[in-house]
Amino acid sequence: MTIAICPGSFDPVTNGHIDIFERASKMFDEVIVGVFNNINKKPLFTVEERVALLKQATAHIPNVKVDCFAGLLADYAHQKNAHVIVRGLRDANDFLYEFPRAMLIKNMAPDIENIFLTTDNKYYHVSSSAIRELAQFGGDITHLVPHCVELAIHEKIKRVPTSK
Amino acid sequence: MTIAICPGSFDPVTNGHIDIFERASKMFDEVIVGVFNNINKKPLFTVEERVALLKQATAHIPNVKVDCFAGLLADYAHQKNAHVIVRGLRDANDFLYEFPRAMLIKNMAPDIENIFLTTDNKYYHVSSSAIRELAQFGGDITHLVPHCVELAIHEKIKRVPTSK
Amino acid sequence: MTIAICPGSFDPVTNGHIDIFERASKMFDEVIVGVFNNINKKPLFTVEERVALLKQATAHIPNVKVDCFAGLLADYAHQKNAHVIVRGLRDANDFLYEFPRAMLIKNMAPDIENIFLTTDNKYYHVSSSAIRELAQFGGDITHLVPHCVELAIHEKIKRVPTSK
Amino acid sequence: MTIAICPGSFDPVTNGHIDIFERASKMFDEVIVGVFNNINKKPLFTVEERVALLKQATAHIPNVKVDCFAGLLADYAHQKNAHVIVRGLRDANDFLYEFPRAMLIKNMAPDIENIFLTTDNKYYHVSSSAIRELAQFGGDITHLVPHCVELAIHEKIKRVPTSK
Amino acid sequence: MTIAICPGSFDPVTNGHIDIFERASKMFDEVIVGVFNNINKKPLFTVEERVALLKQATAHIPNVKVDCFAGLLADYAHQKNAHVIVRGLRDANDFLYEFPRAMLIKNMAPDIENIFLTTDNKYYHVSSSAIRELAQFGGDITHLVPHCVELAIHEKIKRVPTSK
Amino acid sequence: MTIAICPGSFDPVTNGHIDIFERASKMFDEVIVGVFNNINKKPLFTVEERVALLKQATAHIPNVKVDCFAGLLADYAHQKNAHVIVRGLRDANDFLYEFPRAMLIKNMAPDIENIFLTTDNKYYHVSSSAIRELAQFGGDITHLVPHCVELAIHEKIKRVPTSK
Repeated sequence: MTIAICPGSFDPVTNGHIDIFERASKMFDEVIVGVFNNINKKPLFTVEERVALLKQATAHIPNVKVDCFAGLLADYAHQKNAHVIVRGLRDANDFLYEFPRAMLIKNMAPDIENIFLTTDNKYYHVSSSAIRELAQFGGDITHLVPHCVELAIHEKIKRVPTSK
Repeated sequence: MTIAICPGSFDPVTNGHIDIFERASKMFDEVIVGVFNNINKKPLFTVEERVALLKQATAHIPNVKVDCFAGLLADYAHQKNAHVIVRGLRDANDFLYEFPRAMLIKNMAPDIENIFLTTDNKYYHVSSSAIRELAQFGGDITHLVPHCVELAIHEKIKRVPTSK
Repeated sequence: MTIAICPGSFDPVTNGHIDIFERASKMFDEVIVGVFNNINKKPLFTVEERVALLKQATAHIPNVKVDCFAGLLADYAHQKNAHVIVRGLRDANDFLYEFPRAMLIKNMAPDIENIFLTTDNKYYHVSSSAIRELAQFGGDITHLVPHCVELAIHEKIKRVPTSK
Repeated sequence: MTIAICPGSFDPVTNGHIDIFERASKMFDEVIVGVFNNINKKPLFTVEERVALLKQATAHIPNVKVDCFAGLLADYAHQKNAHVIVRGLRDANDFLYEFPRAMLIKNMAPDIENIFLTTDNKYYHVSSSAIRELAQFGGDITHLVPHCVELAIHEKIKRVPTSK
Repeated sequence: MTIAICPGSFDPVTNGHIDIFERASKMFDEVIVGVFNNINKKPLFTVEERVALLKQATAHIPNVKVDCFAGLLADYAHQKNAHVIVRGLRDANDFLYEFPRAMLIKNMAPDIENIFLTTDNKYYHVSSSAIRELAQFGGDITHLVPHCVELAIHEKIKRVPTSK
Repeated sequence: MTIAICPGSFDPVTNGHIDIFERASKMFDEVIVGVFNNINKKPLFTVEERVALLKQATAHIPNVKVDCFAGLLADYAHQKNAHVIVRGLRDANDFLYEFPRAMLIKNMAPDIENIFLTTDNKYYHVSSSAIRELAQFGGDITHLVPHCVELAIHEKIKRVPTSK
């Protein structure tokens, strides 16, 4: 049985992430969505909120589990008995950011495979930071995030008045 | 009549920016230099100061107006009846940063065109952050920024002593 | 009056190209699609065929003219009284290829502006070489090229048997 | 059962390729190494020779099969009932080359997953073209290719005298 | 006599850095490792600690001196009579970051040469920030940094518990 | 004594190359300009012509020698007792092309250092292939190549008529 981890901040999860989970779930027996609890950053949603939103948003994919972790991803993968780490790539930016991270893990834990999936064209412009910015200034995020995220983000963010 | 927006922080405006404004002003009927008021960052110059410096530095270009905005660039463009957003590209770094932003706007507002101009070779090494760093440590910025910016930055920055 | 040139081989023209022409035609008074007659390459379609297909495929855009040229693009632009050269960018590959070419023209002819438009996401994977390869091996190109190109390419290319 | 294809020219297969096959074989039930018979290129080894060398060099991996194909990779994958296409990435060059190809296949055949593995650091500098060049000029390729390839290439290439 | 400067934060120095120093020391008469005292950042080790660690870690290279500086690198190089600035490149990320910085210095101080060395494959995944992260979460850094750094970092960082 | 090699095709040498030679000559005791005799390509100038043009164009730099070689660059460097190979970088394109080649040499010959110099901004758009294309179509190359090259290339290339 092959267990794969999709690590990330997911602050918040987008439809681009969901697409990656769905596709990973077809290739591997079990997919663990691992929310990284970065103690050095102040997120929009707490880890608990992100896990809850991910659970709702992935309820339709039977072999996906949602979890969170702190510390080194390689240690977490070993602990979960996962031998594959899956990341989505939208473009050269994503590649330049993710590749050295994958190589570091590969050197620390040669038994773990780091793989990249290509993001669907139609999610090219969708990132968690874009979603946060759109939501902050009243932009439409309806088709960019799961419905539960849309509701949660409107509760969370007090819309900033756009006049100067 | 085609109205174009040149958005940016312009903290401070450089001769590289002025070159882009001059060239955009030849292609389009009206060019609005839109100073982005990023409420999440602490700038060197206030929005008001940046607008004032830009007005002085673009006084020689008849069809350029200087303005500022907060919120989403796409909303601001619609409000100003602008159908073109203009950005300068110095190199692959600029491209990798600007391209996803342009694609996001393109998806939100398909009626707005995002175009890139190539920066002149001789401004390759000129950026607002380089100017701030040079000024902070007493480097020569005479040929890199408009004269009014040179005066203003020397007033603004207390030169840091360079001995350790 | 601003005249813009969209240069290229267009062997054959794709829907991604047409999208660029349509958008350039909204920004500029006249758009000349300039088919480059590269004497060093053996194309699929002759220059005459490519011009004819482009004329059919751009018949719906009133301010677009189709033409061809050999020699230096800067000279051709001067001859046509065009002050803008327009290119589409799909990704970092396109940027890395087009940017030095634009800078060379800028240095030879500083009165000509080189601008880049962002290609629509949905044409990301569409290139003339991909079309030629798809057509050669019987792939479906229906939604990737104008109808006249689809007909012409099936006449032109004898489908290669795909068994080894 | 998940069948994966590792496509390529493999002219010749290198130790970097073998490393990718070994790792893919741990993730998927069956791995088909598909030698692409590019009718537009003149290879060093014929398709038959490349298949034979690959069979020898992968004999130690039980769930790897070696095959060849012409035509579209998406068609070949469908024919083989494979739902995953695996490619190795050494650096940004590989990414820039492979990503648009993967996106094209993804658009033609959304049921097929395109994934990238990170090449091991120690094979960073190993490519088929480097091997051909090294062999041509008497460079040492002992640790860069399987032993059978080393023997075959020395038979194939008449060493070029290196004096001018 | 040619004096070269290897500038950096070295927070902390890694085996990748040491490799660059050793190689620079073979090309140039004197190599000054210049620790940049960035007053805008909060480092893990103080400048004094970093200088002390570098002195220990480079004690085996006779023509290497360790020093620190604030302010502009070009001014510092002039002050030290150094005409070469040496940087290591691991990949396209490093290039994209370092190249504009080198070009800025080149324009300010045309008498100073900016050169890049290629980092050894085996240090590809080793960066100061990766070391800090590994140390923070109990990862093994034995082969990635000089022994004195390993000891110092374990004293400095209170290991963060990795459970959530 | 440190001997450095500047390898290349130099078909023809440009002012950008000369700038690199001048700067390398200040850093190293002897600089050998090594013209690569690529037996797989058909050049504009023969190796003998390129060597002769380089000798004229570097006559003002006392410690530069011009030579040619076939075969592996690492072997040639060993034969010449050179321990440094110098290449110029104009932008990310050059980096992506040159970096894997440098790494291959580094792995074959760890005693040879591969270094990169940054090309001067004002030669950004100057490449041998651009020169050949400009000359072919009657473009002005006066400030882009040494005078002897300008004369030679006009003799060599029969200007192609630019009308279609």
